[in-house]
Amino acid sequence: MEIADWRKKIDSLDEQIVRLLSERATAAVAIGEIKRGKSAPIYEPDRERMVYEHVRVSNPGPLTTAQVQDIYERIMDVMRALQRPQ
Amino acid sequence: MEIADWRKKIDSLDEQIVRLLSERATAAVAIGEIKRGKSAPIYEPDRERMVYEHVRVSNPGPLTTAQVQDIYERIMDVMRALQRPQ
Repeated sequence: MEIADWRKKIDSLDEQIVRLLSERATAAVAIGEIKRGKSAPIYEPDRERMVYEHVRVSNPGPLTTAQVQDIYERIMDVMRALQRPQ
Repeated sequence: MEIADWRKKIDSLDEQIVRLLSERATAAVAIGEIKRGKSAPIYEPDRERMVYEHVRVSNPGPLTTAQVQDIYERIMDVMRALQRPQ
């Protein structure tokens, strides 16, 4: 495969990744609303640790554990911001 | 849906996101090898701009353009690191 073919594949993967991130964001917003109704804290370190552990064991490679964690730290920052009232 | 149900959904989404990120990384490694064979530069700002534009138009919400861009900047950092020789 040439670079152009790999890039077509990457574009298709990016469309799927953005769609799944959007679904994840919709779920985060829903959880944020439930938490607000219960005056529960937005930041839950135990749940976040479980998310990192879950993505760690789900990672088939070639990304390292540290690289997946790096990406997920940014995803979690954004999701936490979404759960805060605008 | 309760918080526990949304979290089950998030766990399933995360498995899919990690799988797609891994496929994207495999493609990035392949492109890195082709580039090395041609002594082509790893950092290609025009291609990166196209990736950001592509994810911007693919984003259905509720994430903002800036939030998707934030996440993708981290993804691109990691992918660029993967393309460099170890």
